[in-house]
Amino acid sequence: MKKNKNEKTDTNSVGVVETKFIVFAGPGEEFKCESGDTLGLITLAYETYGALNRDKTNAILVLHALSGDAHAAGVHAGQDDTGWWDEMIGPGKAFDTNRYFIICSNVIGGCKGSTGPSSVNPATGKPYALEFPFITVADMVNAQRHLVDHFGIDTLLCVAGGSMGGMQVLQWVASYPERVKSAIPIATTLKHSPQQIAFNEVIRQSIMADPAWREGNYYEYGQPEKGLSVARMIGHITFMSDQSMEEKFSRRLKNDKFSFGFDADFEVEGYLRYRGANFVKRFDANSYLYITKAIDYFDLSGAGLIPQGKTVSTRFLIISFKSDWLYPPYQSQEIVRLLKRRHVDATYCELTSTYGHDAFLIEVEEQTTLIRHFLDKTFNGYQVRGHDRIR
Amino acid sequence: MKKNKNEKTDTNSVGVVETKFIVFAGPGEEFKCESGDTLGLITLAYETYGALNRDKTNAILVLHALSGDAHAAGVHAGQDDTGWWDEMIGPGKAFDTNRYFIICSNVIGGCKGSTGPSSVNPATGKPYALEFPFITVADMVNAQRHLVDHFGIDTLLCVAGGSMGGMQVLQWVASYPERVKSAIPIATTLKHSPQQIAFNEVIRQSIMADPAWREGNYYEYGQPEKGLSVARMIGHITFMSDQSMEEKFSRRLKNDKFSFGFDADFEVEGYLRYRGANFVKRFDANSYLYITKAIDYFDLSGAGLIPQGKTVSTRFLIISFKSDWLYPPYQSQEIVRLLKRRHVDATYCELTSTYGHDAFLIEVEEQTTLIRHFLDKTFNGYQVRGHDRIR
Repeated sequence: MKKNKNEKTDTNSVGVVETKFIVFAGPGEEFKCESGDTLGLITLAYETYGALNRDKTNAILVLHALSGDAHAAGVHAGQDDTGWWDEMIGPGKAFDTNRYFIICSNVIGGCKGSTGPSSVNPATGKPYALEFPFITVADMVNAQRHLVDHFGIDTLLCVAGGSMGGMQVLQWVASYPERVKSAIPIATTLKHSPQQIAFNEVIRQSIMADPAWREGNYYEYGQPEKGLSVARMIGHITFMSDQSMEEKFSRRLKNDKFSFGFDADFEVEGYLRYRGANFVKRFDANSYLYITKAIDYFDLSGAGLIPQGKTVSTRFLIISFKSDWLYPPYQSQEIVRLLKRRHVDATYCELTSTYGHDAFLIEVEEQTTLIRHFLDKTFNGYQVRGHDRIR
Repeated sequence: MKKNKNEKTDTNSVGVVETKFIVFAGPGEEFKCESGDTLGLITLAYETYGALNRDKTNAILVLHALSGDAHAAGVHAGQDDTGWWDEMIGPGKAFDTNRYFIICSNVIGGCKGSTGPSSVNPATGKPYALEFPFITVADMVNAQRHLVDHFGIDTLLCVAGGSMGGMQVLQWVASYPERVKSAIPIATTLKHSPQQIAFNEVIRQSIMADPAWREGNYYEYGQPEKGLSVARMIGHITFMSDQSMEEKFSRRLKNDKFSFGFDADFEVEGYLRYRGANFVKRFDANSYLYITKAIDYFDLSGAGLIPQGKTVSTRFLIISFKSDWLYPPYQSQEIVRLLKRRHVDATYCELTSTYGHDAFLIEVEEQTTLIRHFLDKTFNGYQVRGHDRIR
């Protein structure tokens, strides 16, 4: 077999992977959004790693954060970038592809292969832009269900993800509790707080303030670069912590002295400008509007996660990070308290990290220990019960 | 005497006040900025409350925050708005106008009567815009010294202020230690951290991203409304705390249901939009750029506050607020540690408040107790020593 030049020699990598697509909700079978609007002909971009076992009991759905995509692990042919959770997914890793079948799909409303506002509206032949229906986290999960059905998987061994991925984890349990054996919501919340809504609102206002946004109809002219760049800069501040910024940048200057002007004097300014400009190249402004609004609407507090009178047998591992001020540990603790009140099997871990919200992507070692052990226990228990059922 | 309709019946108010102006740095006496640039014919807007005593020993300089002004207490004739620290300045209040003579001036670089980028450049007859020299916190303080000299005040009984006002307090001690009997820096820092710089950089980028900013030359066209509004929305998030936002807004909707669109659904969104739009009416975009950059450059750490080998006899009261994450208590503690190492008389108080950074404007009662007692002790000791000197 010809070895691809980019194939990782790293034996812990899933190697070269490919994004695939399913299409559903054709004419007469339109997808009903929570808003009441419908959406036809949905494409879902996804990747898989590892192999689905005969009983289809080893499937894990991994869910991405706001600007993530289906490319969670390995590399694409001819490219160098590894997936966004590559250090967590692979042979012997937290999500061990020698044992489990991992699925990751791009959310609807996104811009990484799944249908979103930048997709062509079959009815007009032009990008949807703001004609795209409003979507919610429940809609994202309902779309993913089609993908899980496509594989003939009845019950997922686990759903796992951080940040908005964690909200989808909780939504999976709320929407399809009997189809989720275990859940790992990381650095997330039961509901967006007013501060979280406030940051997202400023992000949206920054995009919509840019005349190049053109009420969303910018596709033939190019992105609203300046507004989108500022929006992402705001985001980046919230992903880091005061301490991680101090460690990474302190007050170091880009040049050896002050400019006494409005150039980027400090390294942190240069970094934010770079991250902003880079984001413009890779993420659709309208998708940013839709997805931030979807997570602002997210609220599974009260009886949202588990309706009154119902019980849930899903096992939970909840992880938060001490320095995460965007999704602070108290929000994870609220999930834990709610689960405990409803007698759900829940383990909580608050990890010490200075990386702020980014920690869920960076703190590999401790998360690996926790997740590997948790999946082991879930899978072994599941297999035993599975055989019981067969007998 | 005819009673003004707006004259406060509140006996604790300083009543109707007037903003006054001094002009200095005329031809041949140009003001030298820290950047090396010079500035001619500077106007400083100021207000005073209470009376200067015969010995000129009862003068307190109160210093405003980023978007503040000279109007710290009382009301202007025909207007309803009280000054920004009205609850702290007046007869019997923390800064007791029955005992003390309070001065407050608008910083240079500002837009509330003092010379700044929106002022007319005498050399061109047009607003300075970006021709205005870059200013620093030390420049603000040097300009204020002209005002203190104007009153023939040798030594200030106290300099006091919160946030950027607190930086000016520290800068007064650094620049003119022998002229400052006591200092009250509140909710402030010795130097801007990378996170603080990052927020200011996003604020600036938001303004400069607006085409209506026109490289600063917008004065004949009107403010860069959208960019400036978004900039201020970012600021407002940092002034409040997660908890105060929860208490004030929680997830309450403006209307009785979701819009499933990009209108302001949540009260917090409406509030931020309102504050943004309001700011555009009252604050100059270029001043916002200049002043944010001035405080980003601010750094009196190391030997900045007290040069090696020097001693300082200024007494300090340092106040911080538990929920203030913009200028967190650890930054105030750094000031205290530095002062203690240099054997300066320093008292530190971390007040419990949920109001975040805004607390220095809101938490009146506890600040009043602390400040009144501190000023009493300073003034009494000063008077005794004063008489000693006379005898």
